Amino acid sequence: MIKNNNEKIMNDITAAIIIIGNEILSGRTQDLNINYIAKELALIGIKLTHVRIIPDIEQEIIDNVNELKAKYTYIFTSGGIGPTHDDITSSSIAKAFNVELIYNREAVKILEDFYGDQLNESRLRMAMIPDTATLIQNSISKAPGYYIENVYVFAGIPKICQAMFGEIKSSLAHGKIIHTKNIQVFTGEGNIAAYFADLQGRYVQVDMGSYPFKKDEKWGTELVLKSSDQLTLNKAFDELTAILKNLNIETE
Amino acid sequence: MIKNNNEKIMNDITAAIIIIGNEILSGRTQDLNINYIAKELALIGIKLTHVRIIPDIEQEIIDNVNELKAKYTYIFTSGGIGPTHDDITSSSIAKAFNVELIYNREAVKILEDFYGDQLNESRLRMAMIPDTATLIQNSISKAPGYYIENVYVFAGIPKICQAMFGEIKSSLAHGKIIHTKNIQVFTGEGNIAAYFADLQGRYVQVDMGSYPFKKDEKWGTELVLKSSDQLTLNKAFDELTAILKNLNIETE
Repeated sequence: MIKNNNEKIMNDITAAIIIIGNEILSGRTQDLNINYIAKELALIGIKLTHVRIIPDIEQEIIDNVNELKAKYTYIFTSGGIGPTHDDITSSSIAKAFNVELIYNREAVKILEDFYGDQLNESRLRMAMIPDTATLIQNSISKAPGYYIENVYVFAGIPKICQAMFGEIKSSLAHGKIIHTKNIQVFTGEGNIAAYFADLQGRYVQVDMGSYPFKKDEKWGTELVLKSSDQLTLNKAFDELTAILKNLNIETE
Repeated sequence: MIKNNNEKIMNDITAAIIIIGNEILSGRTQDLNINYIAKELALIGIKLTHVRIIPDIEQEIIDNVNELKAKYTYIFTSGGIGPTHDDITSSSIAKAFNVELIYNREAVKILEDFYGDQLNESRLRMAMIPDTATLIQNSISKAPGYYIENVYVFAGIPKICQAMFGEIKSSLAHGKIIHTKNIQVFTGEGNIAAYFADLQGRYVQVDMGSYPFKKDEKWGTELVLKSSDQLTLNKAFDELTAILKNLNIETE
């Protein structure tokens, strides 16, 4: 059911995010869910490998979900599960999995309890869930998310998306935790690039990245080392700090 | 050269963004470029239709660029064109287009003028540009971006990315401007969903979206109407405000 086509990521626990939302593509809304989920996944050793933002178009949702669910361990979607006509995520997910979209009894009960006589046909749409899906509780506004096989369907509102992720977090398989060490240097990337590339060549198990920044009108570079092997990471980092000291480069 | 495979978007001027960056996927950095480019494109009638965030892996860059450049009018990439070993965007783009990666004379000159005797081999990597590409000036830190066919390659640092977009903006084909009208109502989405769906059914040229928000602990809904046809948009919006008034719904 879950398979990795990509040799590069074989043996890793991987994830992709699909943000479903015209409001992100139009620039109306700054997405915050990608960064939140990315951070949370990193903490439990799941490698976020791919992200897409797609419009509220049924065929786009079906095609993108089907393509990515075959490629990555976990897929997280956000957006499009509210009560209005433009909320088409659930009907599209049902089609992607070739299952019926049904009134989920448990979801209907949740909405009845919460809305009472304010429950109308539009709100009941939020209880229409793909058959065979398992609900994810929503502690903020009650209407649930769900997962079906390896696809987790969350709301788009950041607080609700985060609450839903919190519900399922402990059930996810954990990967090797990636440890990080970083140091900020007050010099241009180009002044240390050769030394940094040489260090990378000698430590292939450590993933080394270099990110320029500007602080108080001064350009600097953040050097980030990542590895699941803490000892090797420490060794590489010690060597890096020795190199920087040798070059008389100001660090923070 | 530029073709649209997707009937849904035929006749429109469309765009996709590819963010190339492990630092976004790891959650280290909150992306700001998508939202900036999205807003700018909306202003000139270009429809941002698809976004991807992919890791700094050569084959991923080649495959994603090749897939998307055949599907959308414009592709904008950001990230991975600096001087360090993890900056592999340009060599990957060259492979995607099956052209050589060469020292671009104009780019070498720019870097020589800017860096003087601080120009070293690492920095010179930033003058290695796919053959047949045209440079894009970088008013912030000089090392240029470039475009090749319909693919525009920008830096990842938001200020530089924005400056590069500014350089090429006026050369992009403009699409039909999409006009927007929106209204915030202090009621749940579910209370107006049926009326809103009915309105959408009667105005197929107007794209209607509904976005819940929370302000001062009070839930509300923003109703957004979009259309390239200003007259029809105004008519639909007037009808919407009449419906809301009729329902005694508090608006802002």
